Amino acid sequence: MEFKVTHQCLSGGARRAEITTAHGRFETPVFMPVGTQGSVKALSPEDLEQAGVGILLANTYHLYLRPGHGLIERLGGLHRFMSWKGGILTDSGGYQVYSLSKLRKISEEGVTFQSHLDGSTHFIGPREAMEIQKALGADVIMAFDECAPYPADYDYVRNSVRLTSQWAKICLKCARSDSQALFGIVQGGVYSDLRERSAREIVSMGFDGYALGGLSVGEDRATRQQVVQETVRFLPAEKPRYLMGVGKPEDILDGVTAGIDLFDCVLPTRNARNGALFTKHGPLAIKNACYADDDRPVDESCSCYTCAHFSRAYLRHLFMAKELLAYRLNTIHNLHYYMGFMAHIRQAIQEDRFTDFRQAFLEQSET
Amino acid sequence: MEFKVTHQCLSGGARRAEITTAHGRFETPVFMPVGTQGSVKALSPEDLEQAGVGILLANTYHLYLRPGHGLIERLGGLHRFMSWKGGILTDSGGYQVYSLSKLRKISEEGVTFQSHLDGSTHFIGPREAMEIQKALGADVIMAFDECAPYPADYDYVRNSVRLTSQWAKICLKCARSDSQALFGIVQGGVYSDLRERSAREIVSMGFDGYALGGLSVGEDRATRQQVVQETVRFLPAEKPRYLMGVGKPEDILDGVTAGIDLFDCVLPTRNARNGALFTKHGPLAIKNACYADDDRPVDESCSCYTCAHFSRAYLRHLFMAKELLAYRLNTIHNLHYYMGFMAHIRQAIQEDRFTDFRQAFLEQSET
Repeated sequence: MEFKVTHQCLSGGARRAEITTAHGRFETPVFMPVGTQGSVKALSPEDLEQAGVGILLANTYHLYLRPGHGLIERLGGLHRFMSWKGGILTDSGGYQVYSLSKLRKISEEGVTFQSHLDGSTHFIGPREAMEIQKALGADVIMAFDECAPYPADYDYVRNSVRLTSQWAKICLKCARSDSQALFGIVQGGVYSDLRERSAREIVSMGFDGYALGGLSVGEDRATRQQVVQETVRFLPAEKPRYLMGVGKPEDILDGVTAGIDLFDCVLPTRNARNGALFTKHGPLAIKNACYADDDRPVDESCSCYTCAHFSRAYLRHLFMAKELLAYRLNTIHNLHYYMGFMAHIRQAIQEDRFTDFRQAFLEQSET
Repeated sequence: MEFKVTHQCLSGGARRAEITTAHGRFETPVFMPVGTQGSVKALSPEDLEQAGVGILLANTYHLYLRPGHGLIERLGGLHRFMSWKGGILTDSGGYQVYSLSKLRKISEEGVTFQSHLDGSTHFIGPREAMEIQKALGADVIMAFDECAPYPADYDYVRNSVRLTSQWAKICLKCARSDSQALFGIVQGGVYSDLRERSAREIVSMGFDGYALGGLSVGEDRATRQQVVQETVRFLPAEKPRYLMGVGKPEDILDGVTAGIDLFDCVLPTRNARNGALFTKHGPLAIKNACYADDDRPVDESCSCYTCAHFSRAYLRHLFMAKELLAYRLNTIHNLHYYMGFMAHIRQAIQEDRFTDFRQAFLEQSET
């Protein structure tokens, strides 16, 4: 993987960069839509291409449980399996083990957990996480971490930082494909000294990029932003930085301000399936009765397939009637919104006016 | 609407024709996918175009209940509402009132019924059916008929034929748009003399086309074919003939043999959503374990988007994981199969080898 900063904002940490993998080049700051089970819900690879997606995220935990990483490897890897030519990042499974599975039991070696699908017992440690991700064959893979809940007391988080470093070392020693970049994950909850300790330890090991984990799990926005800004100081400028599971447009602006390059979140796709559409003028709940006979597109300034062809009235009808097409059309729109938002951010950075852009966006959102 | 027979088979009734409406030209024998609620489930208009769909069917009963024909009319009609540039045929609501609603009460004036959505009471008679269909603005609209259940005794069906003729006369007198063709419906159950009576009465009124209703409701294939062949004899050769709600590929072959031009059925789209895929080698149940690691496309000779990009293994995974993409990819494939099947039928008619084509297809299906 190549990472090249192409523009650093004069004031503040915002930066523009290019990442090149075996599956093409994309520009950062970048948003990665989530394709949990090897499919960005309701969209085809063609839809993703048309939205301008350069890299997507898939979940190691889900693909390990179903259909199984061995099967995907035998079929030529995840890119081929899902017919996606662009970049893929797989998470390590750590977060899903923490958030989805029941009866999680953490040891020095890893985590024993029950499948959310059938209750069967499984174990994933750093070696297993690497083996699974090698089989899936994503362009960017993540070290296996221990994601502390929120709130969690200091001692719990200190131990989680210790385990995360211990496991990170093991991940670095495990086999992976030459074309796979491995990112380390910084934990530490909302404790500044633990974040610093985690960052220093992980960075000292020498990963291809660095992620901030354990955020967007319940803490408020100001706290999150403080943690991100404090932590980024300990990350090397010449490597990509990834803020995991973030987020809302305002959270992305915060992250970019702090110098973050990569983001992922289920928000645009999940909200779409719930009928919550993003527009320049704020959120639009398509089920509202006021849209029943509204002949306008969701957003008149939007150029997506949905806005080019369908009225709010039709989208509301599809949604109320639970027509499958509703989920796809809404997702196409929301993803287009996010991709456009990131393009505007990159443009603003390039033109050294990101601070103004951010300010204007936040003011408009509040009105 | 223009209807032009372009080739009549030398032996048998099979024929090829062209139909031109305000929304383009298509060739017959034609299959109309069903867009019950103003959407062919899981597909966009672009998907339909790519499958080669020339005309689709939408359901008057459903659109009347939700979102309402008045709303669709105010928004410029059904074509504009669903952003579909091709042909549309709306049924009269008669069949859905019979099959979906509860507490149906038939009078000389029409049918009082309860909505399957909320139990509210509604009335549709010939005038209402025409008013709704005028508002929807389809290219082909259907007279309001009384669809007898199966089995039904002679007296019930005789009365249903009487009502259907009575209502057909009223439909002809009702206002419709100049560009809308109105088809009459022949009823009569499986009673030859009642079918003849119904056909003679309906034809004498002078419709733009003629449909056979009340079939594919439980009778066996041989009975249906006998009824169709006996009834077609009383329909004028210079008008299109439509066999409503049919059907399976073998039923379509039977219908074409009898001289039918138009077909509609939920089979390809509904089966797709249930994971039952059509192939040249017979049906394929994608959930079967044998496809878990099958790297081949559903049908190696198929050129649809699904077969060009995805393996059986991936489609099985999507289906087992209930991913929304499964429904669209499966539907694209099945509809492509049906459209290709109809194209082969038309080609065989053109080349005077339809009887052989039919024979070969049926033999292959049985093996």
